[in-house]
Amino acid sequence: MRKKNFKRLNLLLALIISFSIVLSPALNSNVQAKGKKEVKNVILLIPDGTGITHTTLARWYKGGSPLAMDEIASGLIRTYSSDAVIADSAPAGTAMATGFKSHTGFIGVLPDVANMPLVDAIPKGEERRPVATVLETAKLKGKATGLVATSEFPHATPASFASHYPKRSDYNTLSEQMVYNNVDVVLAGGYSELTPAKRKDKEDLIKVLKERGYGVVRNNEELSNFKGNKVWGLFAPSAMPYDKDRTENTPSMATMAAKAIDILSKDKDGFFLMVEGSKIDWASHANDPVGVITEVLAFDNAVKVALDFAKKDKNTVVIVAPDHSNGGMSIGDSGLDKTYDNEPLSTFLPPLKAAKLTGEGLESKINSEKTNIKEVMSYYYGVSDLTAEEEEAIKNAEPGKLNYTVGPIISKRAHIGWTTTGHTGEEVGLYVYHPKGDRLTGVVQNTDIAKYICEVLGTNLSETTKTLFLQADKAFKNKGALVTVDSIDKENLVLIVSKGETEIKFPQNKDIAIVNGKVVKMPGVTVYSGDKEKIDISKWYVSQNAVDLIK
Amino acid sequence: MRKKNFKRLNLLLALIISFSIVLSPALNSNVQAKGKKEVKNVILLIPDGTGITHTTLARWYKGGSPLAMDEIASGLIRTYSSDAVIADSAPAGTAMATGFKSHTGFIGVLPDVANMPLVDAIPKGEERRPVATVLETAKLKGKATGLVATSEFPHATPASFASHYPKRSDYNTLSEQMVYNNVDVVLAGGYSELTPAKRKDKEDLIKVLKERGYGVVRNNEELSNFKGNKVWGLFAPSAMPYDKDRTENTPSMATMAAKAIDILSKDKDGFFLMVEGSKIDWASHANDPVGVITEVLAFDNAVKVALDFAKKDKNTVVIVAPDHSNGGMSIGDSGLDKTYDNEPLSTFLPPLKAAKLTGEGLESKINSEKTNIKEVMSYYYGVSDLTAEEEEAIKNAEPGKLNYTVGPIISKRAHIGWTTTGHTGEEVGLYVYHPKGDRLTGVVQNTDIAKYICEVLGTNLSETTKTLFLQADKAFKNKGALVTVDSIDKENLVLIVSKGETEIKFPQNKDIAIVNGKVVKMPGVTVYSGDKEKIDISKWYVSQNAVDLIK
Repeated sequence: MRKKNFKRLNLLLALIISFSIVLSPALNSNVQAKGKKEVKNVILLIPDGTGITHTTLARWYKGGSPLAMDEIASGLIRTYSSDAVIADSAPAGTAMATGFKSHTGFIGVLPDVANMPLVDAIPKGEERRPVATVLETAKLKGKATGLVATSEFPHATPASFASHYPKRSDYNTLSEQMVYNNVDVVLAGGYSELTPAKRKDKEDLIKVLKERGYGVVRNNEELSNFKGNKVWGLFAPSAMPYDKDRTENTPSMATMAAKAIDILSKDKDGFFLMVEGSKIDWASHANDPVGVITEVLAFDNAVKVALDFAKKDKNTVVIVAPDHSNGGMSIGDSGLDKTYDNEPLSTFLPPLKAAKLTGEGLESKINSEKTNIKEVMSYYYGVSDLTAEEEEAIKNAEPGKLNYTVGPIISKRAHIGWTTTGHTGEEVGLYVYHPKGDRLTGVVQNTDIAKYICEVLGTNLSETTKTLFLQADKAFKNKGALVTVDSIDKENLVLIVSKGETEIKFPQNKDIAIVNGKVVKMPGVTVYSGDKEKIDISKWYVSQNAVDLIK
Repeated sequence: MRKKNFKRLNLLLALIISFSIVLSPALNSNVQAKGKKEVKNVILLIPDGTGITHTTLARWYKGGSPLAMDEIASGLIRTYSSDAVIADSAPAGTAMATGFKSHTGFIGVLPDVANMPLVDAIPKGEERRPVATVLETAKLKGKATGLVATSEFPHATPASFASHYPKRSDYNTLSEQMVYNNVDVVLAGGYSELTPAKRKDKEDLIKVLKERGYGVVRNNEELSNFKGNKVWGLFAPSAMPYDKDRTENTPSMATMAAKAIDILSKDKDGFFLMVEGSKIDWASHANDPVGVITEVLAFDNAVKVALDFAKKDKNTVVIVAPDHSNGGMSIGDSGLDKTYDNEPLSTFLPPLKAAKLTGEGLESKINSEKTNIKEVMSYYYGVSDLTAEEEEAIKNAEPGKLNYTVGPIISKRAHIGWTTTGHTGEEVGLYVYHPKGDRLTGVVQNTDIAKYICEVLGTNLSETTKTLFLQADKAFKNKGALVTVDSIDKENLVLIVSKGETEIKFPQNKDIAIVNGKVVKMPGVTVYSGDKEKIDISKWYVSQNAVDLIK
């Protein structure tokens, strides 16, 4: 190259560089520290208890063409808990929501012990402390938030995103926090959890929701007609039916996802939405392949809704992340030990395709005298060769657990293997769509899901924890205040802070402070993560705003 | 924007566009039709019979830190055959080697029937036709090629890359083709397959290799000392021992991979190397978790060697692609149905860590009277609670199959579940490293592996098939030649083509033509894929060069 040309080239380069800087400020500002470009919205879809086989089998059932989630597969997720090899939905949901692995049964709080490889130890005093969720970071950034599930809404996975308590079965606590945590859209089962009849504190949380401006809808039609920005849709007293067993009255996962996106996407600041296919897990526990397959397909329809929105919107990340695997399910079993490599689809599919209902749905078809078992199995499952032993097993099935008997009966005929009715410890699939291609990939930790979400949303988990969940006792004492707990009503514990003329009450699980009798809204819920019977003052957590109320 | 500025902008844009075209020819030329940037080398590593659980368990065994392959996980692979749901290594290897799904047992040839979803039907007359492999495309482009395995070299996976025959058990045919297919480096077991004693045609293929300029090495030291460019290393009469059971005499997978890369990377045109962890599959068939774990880890060490080379070289794609899963293995079994979510690593690892040998390696430790079973199980496996039933089962184990008895004994103690001793049908992991980030991702077909390799190597499978495997009868008859087969010696079939004064003999499985008695080298081997007993003239395939010999 001649010198003159070189000079021209230099000039040109300079022009191009300045040109890029001038023209692409939006692009430049989108580049984060770790290099993932920021987006407005994140939709996280969690197929609960879904291993690789679950999706393979569902895909064959529907004909073999790719599932909606297939094109965005990008790696695998390690699912172990802070102190156990095999996860439960509570610590796994917590890991994806908060970025911290926790103990089985713990929702949105740190574990007591973290002794598994590659997990930081828990500092003394920080056991069971609430940690912020990605949903809470999004909310603080002004984004709309939503939770969709087919279980009752306070079940472990949805609860992990909007509540904090070290006991997943304490629906009273989790439900109350979820109601008071200002999630814009909640669509799931679990209506009864909000009623005075079911609640130990006898509060009417449906009334609370309505007072706080929520629409409360109960069926598909009401959901479809709803026009507002804040809604709780509760489509069953507890869990919703399996997709295979539902009627038109009950919305599908895809319908719920679409409606949630519809509402949340009206927020100009963007949104975070979590959608759980809750009952894939339940069908797996029962070793019921019909339940597994049809729930995976219903879930995948919701993935399609999310992906279609994201591709059109161009400002949305979609993540599909199972929380753990379940059942040790395999396509092929000991009946095919010698012939596995010659088996066509007709070896596996007909017994699965013949089923008109899941094992759960079948239960209501058997009469109370249990005299019609053969007819029911023949009509609803196409099983004409039911053995006497199988009939007896169905007869003796525990109420509500028929799927645990029917599942294996069908599995055997379809050559679907299982090793357990519990969860299993292998990695699950990771699926990510990012409009600019900045996908999470590799074998990642479940905690990386939370970190990635915050990276692309431009939010911060640890800052949010510092904003929402300060150790109350320490924070208030630093300000010279007196801190006590009113524990006369175990179901309505109240943290009381007083200094001079000021007395502030912080009722557990609510986002309010009562300052000298006047209700003031807080940015997060007051969490008590200690024992109800033996109050531990150090386990109360309130927001920075709450602390700031004491001058 | 004012009009004047707009004009300037247009000018600037025009400048930038032309500038890019002028300055980036190298970049542009690297961009393939599908947009994947070309590289010089590809290393494909196949862990045979490896599902997700296999890698999870191996990772925990070694302490929990990531495996070498973890960081490049990028999706999942669908493994089904042309006419079966669950793959065998022959069609699965063929799919990754040729881009075509095939029938169980078929090596490097099309199936008779392709009736599974998303697979093109086989045109009449094209059944069992050889199709080019990625190794053959690389060879035609002047690249060096290599195959590494721990099985005997003509086992299904390595055979799929360098031979073509619809019967995986016909080692006579596959071995001969592999010897005559000019692979630069072959490191595996299977020495006896090349000896007159084992071969039906009584040929001494070791002698042939030496005549063709290959070094033939037999142990770790000889391999280490080898300095040339062409080598066959055959480290056992048939399969090599499991990594856990091998002595210093036998090279590890990592040592073989490193030596192969060392030799092949001397070729300035680049190279293609396939490395198989063959016996992960065999341990899975036996439901032997110790064999699975230690083979996965030995394989992963080879992955590390490949990745280290690729990252330094910056011109190499590394792919890890299991061919199918096996065993329905799970971490967690029915013994943990109720407690799975509270189990620490110590529930699973001690019984596995106690093992000093695999189930196969253990066999030689039991005396012929089988009186020392308890002592052997205690010393080599730390099992002090062997039941009478288990002792009896070990006593009655079929010779060469002790691992099928010991594997389940250890699995039960380690709470590792299994559903079958056969393969299973779920997707397996996909792992890809590309120096420019152009990775294969999503849920892909096994055939996409072959297509991706050719894309990044800039080679072409269908063109190579047209170059190497023309239907001989048709091609020669078009030239007015007479085509017959000399089938007097069933083990040395010869295609004979004559026209005028010219008579050309094409011995089956060799890369030579004998033109009026004079040997001429061909670019590929002559393939006969029909029945040996009833010759089908239409099933002979030769190269375009062979056809060109007839004027």
